[in-house]
Amino acid sequence: MTSPTDYRFLKACRGEPVDATPVWFMRQAGRYMKEYRALKEKYSFLEMCQTPELATEVTLQPLKPLGVDAAIIFADILLPLEPMGTGLEFIKGDGPSIPRPVRTRKDVENLRPVNSEEQLGYVGQAIKLVRQEIEGKIPLVGFAAAPFTLCSYMVEGGKSSEFKITKLLMYEEPETWKLLMEKVSTVLIDYLKMQVAAGAQALQIFDSWIGCVTPEDYREYILPYCQKVMNALKDLDVPVINFSTGTSSMLDVIAQAGGDVMSFDWRINIDQARDVIGWDKPVQGNMDPVVLFAPIPVIKKRVNDIMQRVGGKPGHIFNLGHGILQHTPVDHVKAVVDMVREYKHGG
Amino acid sequence: MTSPTDYRFLKACRGEPVDATPVWFMRQAGRYMKEYRALKEKYSFLEMCQTPELATEVTLQPLKPLGVDAAIIFADILLPLEPMGTGLEFIKGDGPSIPRPVRTRKDVENLRPVNSEEQLGYVGQAIKLVRQEIEGKIPLVGFAAAPFTLCSYMVEGGKSSEFKITKLLMYEEPETWKLLMEKVSTVLIDYLKMQVAAGAQALQIFDSWIGCVTPEDYREYILPYCQKVMNALKDLDVPVINFSTGTSSMLDVIAQAGGDVMSFDWRINIDQARDVIGWDKPVQGNMDPVVLFAPIPVIKKRVNDIMQRVGGKPGHIFNLGHGILQHTPVDHVKAVVDMVREYKHGG
Repeated sequence: MTSPTDYRFLKACRGEPVDATPVWFMRQAGRYMKEYRALKEKYSFLEMCQTPELATEVTLQPLKPLGVDAAIIFADILLPLEPMGTGLEFIKGDGPSIPRPVRTRKDVENLRPVNSEEQLGYVGQAIKLVRQEIEGKIPLVGFAAAPFTLCSYMVEGGKSSEFKITKLLMYEEPETWKLLMEKVSTVLIDYLKMQVAAGAQALQIFDSWIGCVTPEDYREYILPYCQKVMNALKDLDVPVINFSTGTSSMLDVIAQAGGDVMSFDWRINIDQARDVIGWDKPVQGNMDPVVLFAPIPVIKKRVNDIMQRVGGKPGHIFNLGHGILQHTPVDHVKAVVDMVREYKHGG
Repeated sequence: MTSPTDYRFLKACRGEPVDATPVWFMRQAGRYMKEYRALKEKYSFLEMCQTPELATEVTLQPLKPLGVDAAIIFADILLPLEPMGTGLEFIKGDGPSIPRPVRTRKDVENLRPVNSEEQLGYVGQAIKLVRQEIEGKIPLVGFAAAPFTLCSYMVEGGKSSEFKITKLLMYEEPETWKLLMEKVSTVLIDYLKMQVAAGAQALQIFDSWIGCVTPEDYREYILPYCQKVMNALKDLDVPVINFSTGTSSMLDVIAQAGGDVMSFDWRINIDQARDVIGWDKPVQGNMDPVVLFAPIPVIKKRVNDIMQRVGGKPGHIFNLGHGILQHTPVDHVKAVVDMVREYKHGG
């Protein structure tokens, strides 16, 4: 049984030397795996998230076949919306839909405070169950959305390409926007603390849609709330991963939010990103998820390119720049794990 | 009547001092204007593009109300697809659809060469008509897609979010991809030369979707063809604008393609972009199109921020980072023109 301080993944999060670069994937449990699809035929996505035994089963599904260095609890970034009172539905093929979007001061004032222990306790229970199953093998990552990403869903009522309603709320009613971000941050802090209390050994904060804003909008309307969340997690003694996409040109600004590890996408070479944010800051991510569909030699070239650019320097976690896509060949994902583990620097 | 060498817009494209910063907008003719919507009730989008008198009317629509410093010919980046043989349809609400996508070696081999003078001559005729109308007032910009953006539509069969089929063609069949890019580049060069022969006084090359690739993919699979197109336009003696979005972290790589002016989006501050690509290179773009929906004081703050960051240095064309969005208030667009024109550096 491995002591928590010896996990390769947690060591890399702390910038300590490791025997091999840790590797895991966002959405490593999901539709691309036949075991997941089999379960999905019997239960809805929300049922799977909200039933601890099912969430546990899904979390465990990829671990043995892939041999990854971390598990991530099966859940959804939008789960806090139900107790906040906006409603939450997943419509087949169309993704998430929020029946009562938040667009006015009154909507924001009506948002309900959340007691995560009581109202999102199913996530905590799943975390406890997964920990029992994987104890001593690999650590378990908990997660939540970052404030902007959660608010953008709440305001738009679902996915968006232009984020027009969200940005206009920021511009037209900055006080309403700030109250919304404040309320959401409070919920996220409580939710993340609950996950750590239940046994999460690291946290990832997903700012999946933040790449739509300007650096100055980020500073003015978003950064203070990201900092608030990150600061509140400091005492928990678990590493926190600051994840974003589409932010390659403003990683220095995003890094000001805090977090122990910066996770970014493929629109920048990983060594150039480390030049910007500083080589002492651990990093994660970077491979384009589409590359996993490519022939093995192409995948290998990409993996090797990333590994070579990092040059064996500490504080590197191999991952994609975003989640695994539907229909990704499972054996290609497994191949990446092997490539990363077998890579020899200077070899 | 202004001599061509005196146009504010063309001077800025050449990096020469100007009396006021030139300003125009991508999609300045379009659905946000009631004059356009009135015409659109009688004709389809393709009819409007392909009938020189209608394209001329639409091109002229925004010029007086807005008072912009350049006209851009009303056309669509996908028009060359029809003569190439893939078909082209615009489905209400769903955007463009390509009935016969290009996905195999055979598909690429079957693409037909294009004689732009004959097969896309309606664009040239519209250019001639517009020139007669605006001669001596403002210059006219012609345009085409960049090779990657056009190829991505051809391969995906329409718009895409992941560009999976396009990237996999690159990765799995690089020779097929290169033949496709070669053929498309040849068509684009002929098409752009025809536009200049007809009277276009500047050209803009739209690489609207290039922000989905890694810097290294750009270098290997895309850059040589962008360079080929840009090089072929050098002798035409008109400035060429190299437009892209989502590329803020790799503007140095995109700039290697060539072009006299770099046009980029809002994900980077304009002064930082100029630091990267060099202050001697003229620039365009940068304002988030969503800001045009915001209250006037918010718009003014943004305009002033951009103007202040450029600091009155030559080679600046004010524009958005992408096209004007549907439902944008026309008076807000006009207000931006006035703000730019009235801005006093150091004032």
